[in-house]
Amino acid sequence: MKSDLPTATLLVSCPDQKGLVAKIANFIYSHDGNIIHADQHTDFNTGLFLTRVEWQLDGFALTREEIAPAFAQFCACFGAKWQLFFSDRKPRMSIWVSKQEHCLLDLLWRSRSGEFAVDVPLIISNHPDLQYIADQFGIDYCHIPITKDNKSQQEAQQLEMLQKYQIDLVVLAKYMQVVTPNFINQFGEIINIHHSFLPAFVGANAYHKAYQRGVKIIGATAHYVTDDLDAGPIIEQDIINISHRDDVKDLICKGKDLERLVLARAVKLHLQNRILVYGNRTVVFK
Amino acid sequence: MKSDLPTATLLVSCPDQKGLVAKIANFIYSHDGNIIHADQHTDFNTGLFLTRVEWQLDGFALTREEIAPAFAQFCACFGAKWQLFFSDRKPRMSIWVSKQEHCLLDLLWRSRSGEFAVDVPLIISNHPDLQYIADQFGIDYCHIPITKDNKSQQEAQQLEMLQKYQIDLVVLAKYMQVVTPNFINQFGEIINIHHSFLPAFVGANAYHKAYQRGVKIIGATAHYVTDDLDAGPIIEQDIINISHRDDVKDLICKGKDLERLVLARAVKLHLQNRILVYGNRTVVFK
Amino acid sequence: MKSDLPTATLLVSCPDQKGLVAKIANFIYSHDGNIIHADQHTDFNTGLFLTRVEWQLDGFALTREEIAPAFAQFCACFGAKWQLFFSDRKPRMSIWVSKQEHCLLDLLWRSRSGEFAVDVPLIISNHPDLQYIADQFGIDYCHIPITKDNKSQQEAQQLEMLQKYQIDLVVLAKYMQVVTPNFINQFGEIINIHHSFLPAFVGANAYHKAYQRGVKIIGATAHYVTDDLDAGPIIEQDIINISHRDDVKDLICKGKDLERLVLARAVKLHLQNRILVYGNRTVVFK
Amino acid sequence: MKSDLPTATLLVSCPDQKGLVAKIANFIYSHDGNIIHADQHTDFNTGLFLTRVEWQLDGFALTREEIAPAFAQFCACFGAKWQLFFSDRKPRMSIWVSKQEHCLLDLLWRSRSGEFAVDVPLIISNHPDLQYIADQFGIDYCHIPITKDNKSQQEAQQLEMLQKYQIDLVVLAKYMQVVTPNFINQFGEIINIHHSFLPAFVGANAYHKAYQRGVKIIGATAHYVTDDLDAGPIIEQDIINISHRDDVKDLICKGKDLERLVLARAVKLHLQNRILVYGNRTVVFK
Repeated sequence: MKSDLPTATLLVSCPDQKGLVAKIANFIYSHDGNIIHADQHTDFNTGLFLTRVEWQLDGFALTREEIAPAFAQFCACFGAKWQLFFSDRKPRMSIWVSKQEHCLLDLLWRSRSGEFAVDVPLIISNHPDLQYIADQFGIDYCHIPITKDNKSQQEAQQLEMLQKYQIDLVVLAKYMQVVTPNFINQFGEIINIHHSFLPAFVGANAYHKAYQRGVKIIGATAHYVTDDLDAGPIIEQDIINISHRDDVKDLICKGKDLERLVLARAVKLHLQNRILVYGNRTVVFK
Repeated sequence: MKSDLPTATLLVSCPDQKGLVAKIANFIYSHDGNIIHADQHTDFNTGLFLTRVEWQLDGFALTREEIAPAFAQFCACFGAKWQLFFSDRKPRMSIWVSKQEHCLLDLLWRSRSGEFAVDVPLIISNHPDLQYIADQFGIDYCHIPITKDNKSQQEAQQLEMLQKYQIDLVVLAKYMQVVTPNFINQFGEIINIHHSFLPAFVGANAYHKAYQRGVKIIGATAHYVTDDLDAGPIIEQDIINISHRDDVKDLICKGKDLERLVLARAVKLHLQNRILVYGNRTVVFK
Repeated sequence: MKSDLPTATLLVSCPDQKGLVAKIANFIYSHDGNIIHADQHTDFNTGLFLTRVEWQLDGFALTREEIAPAFAQFCACFGAKWQLFFSDRKPRMSIWVSKQEHCLLDLLWRSRSGEFAVDVPLIISNHPDLQYIADQFGIDYCHIPITKDNKSQQEAQQLEMLQKYQIDLVVLAKYMQVVTPNFINQFGEIINIHHSFLPAFVGANAYHKAYQRGVKIIGATAHYVTDDLDAGPIIEQDIINISHRDDVKDLICKGKDLERLVLARAVKLHLQNRILVYGNRTVVFK
Repeated sequence: MKSDLPTATLLVSCPDQKGLVAKIANFIYSHDGNIIHADQHTDFNTGLFLTRVEWQLDGFALTREEIAPAFAQFCACFGAKWQLFFSDRKPRMSIWVSKQEHCLLDLLWRSRSGEFAVDVPLIISNHPDLQYIADQFGIDYCHIPITKDNKSQQEAQQLEMLQKYQIDLVVLAKYMQVVTPNFINQFGEIINIHHSFLPAFVGANAYHKAYQRGVKIIGATAHYVTDDLDAGPIIEQDIINISHRDDVKDLICKGKDLERLVLARAVKLHLQNRILVYGNRTVVFK
């Protein structure tokens, strides 16, 4: 069985050059680390090398505090960008919703059941409707109504809440408001679920558009949020078959199952530090 | 086991009204017909009733020649559009290709193996490359090169060929030319395979665009051809998962399998008279 | 849009003969019924005709009380078995669980959200663990522990509860006890979710067996319960891809999503009266 | 774009120990090799480390002849089993068939189109029927009829043919004969396609059994052949949905598409040296 001992994970991207696999593995091995997962990808179009390495902290010669400076020094010569995570430091996630509950419930069940290694201390919504779910799960629910006129003040309040609750990741779980570039500049780790197989049916009312077009499959897409609406790096997509018997209401109902699953898979991959973003693409080390 | 005795099939669409299922079934039953498949759909948005009825000709009180006039008279009062087919009258299909062989081969193999009830007397191409396949299968191959300047003359020649070979259905099996509205006005039964999950990635180079966008699934779409490029009624769609490891070449390779299958399924449904088109939608009676 | 007006649904099976589609449609039409769904299937191996007809009660010439006797008389001559349902008479469902919550939560959420037209007044479990969920949803939770020695007494108690709560359908939502033939004889409407693509991996520990065999897909199967363990008529199946990276724990985790979805789809089809069982098979009129 | 320069690939399995990723990468790097793909897996149940490393031969300090002895010496201390392949040394594949053509045609098309890097010099069959396909593709067709009484002599002849044509891989593409343990002992690289999602429906007539059981999905499984019929290590599986409308004939027809695809994917993975077998399991480095 896989061990549950704490691990460290490095996500690294840098210009490709000979010997990177060996060098990075050596960095771990030279400090007595036991690698339990290593995967890499070379994007030949951009000349970029991207890797994920996970090793057990038990028996590792460096303390947690020493790892980051040591790796920084080590990789300075090959121009790498990198991130370091420890498996026993649970990230803190805030879920944002409007009125629909299905994605919120799904994420909370998975968090409570231990499928996700995460803390969820805060739900933010532009509507009061889902307060009762927050209450059932014992999570703070912050109702921040949004109108055209108050968006910038309200986003300031949202940012304040994220800071106060020390949030690492925001998940838009059917949050029906556009997040402004100004907000994204200040808080960049945001995952959204979109109710279509992007890039088809960008924007609102994707199921209505899908019905109008007469498609035979509908989809859902989980992606990181960028300034460019519905055009951020895609993490996960899936689809379901439909037929002429399905009207818009049926599409919405079937779509809910898709949205739940696709968002849950994307959040899990993120929480396991399996995703590297470069340009507008993701590498997903499954 | 299903019988192989000859059958007649009616595809009917008309404004919805009470009693249509009973009336149409009675039409068959009153002439001693044994219905072996009946399916219907009501589109509540347009108030349209659509149905497919198939019955055995053996023992039917009307001769083949009598059925159409009898049904015309019968349905005059409820404003129906309808088509009548006989299972032992094989349609004649022309396959159009450019340089890629995979869809052509797949269709020919299914035709030869008896999976399709169809005759394929004619292949048309704007390139000479696939002549050898036509030769292997003993089918006439008509090479009609197309340039910007000669398109209208060449389409006239294509129409002439379709007439000469008494073609019922044209299948664009990776035929890399746009068919003009003028042509479509004169020959309307055309099925195309598009290399994306429409409406994403309309037009050329869909796999390149899919790669650029960083999607995690690619698709293929079989549709009837209308004046509006890549926007005709969709018959069938399917997808395949991809990952960051797949470059454009891999997408093209994986896409070939999708294109083959999706096109084959669409052609089979059409040949079995299971598709009713209304507006820009299809009802597919599977 | 589809209307929400109340409807009646007939599920009928009888030996095939000419004219059945017409006759049954006429029965409805002759009493001024508006058919909104009709589908049929002929099993040529057994010579059986099976059909589902749904029509609006509004404007129908017979009262609800008159329909059953009228249809009984009507179909006496062709030896039909049939069932009659009214869409505004919600069935009463009891969910049975052991310790795992995922299927239970999923069914309850769908019931609460209105996706299922059902009342869930009773949860029965051989363990006390999931009482808190019953409490959250305001449903009675009946803890009936079961050992080898007390099974028959406890089943008597279970039957009593079903009677007391006037239960129409029992759903085994990861209920880890075999239900005895004696019980099934007295209460026959039971749907179970099995954690494999039956008939592979019958019995307990399906995920362990799947891991041992080294399969590349795992599945889930929803079926009616019969005396023959895991061999009842299959309603719905689905699968998910796995790889060498997935150990038993991963299979169980991925399997939960499958089990939830497959069971939910089966229950929904049953509640919509879309399933006809004959022999050990189902016809599912989707 | 990925380069088409020749590469070497090592498949290695050995008892897990600290530093294996680093050591093997170092072996390549220390001889100036540029790794373009490296993947590994640790099976914690068996304590086995398995890896695939591919690097460019261009600029590598060892000649092809020197690599194997050097690696043998290098890995002697950690008890590894390993295989070495060069991408520009095309393996030689023999396809075995009975009367059905679909898998054979599919493999031949892919070989001719360049999707497979393989030579196919020999088709063996226990029937004469598919000779014409061999002729079309210019491949030798060896008809070796088999009866209960002559199987061992005929297998001797088959082995002789494999030797004569220097075959590396045998693909049973709907070859309806059991290969004996004696044969397998002498020639071990055999891939088979089975017409079910194993372990369901082992043996002959899988579609008939699937129909009898009333399943809602059918599958296909590609696996290596071992002494234990239909129980060898699974490479690839896939499924397709079916319904009550599909009789045995329909299952067989739909199954053909599955069999073609699943077998083709398995053969491609094998030809790309992406599969490591251990015990009765495969690691597939996609």
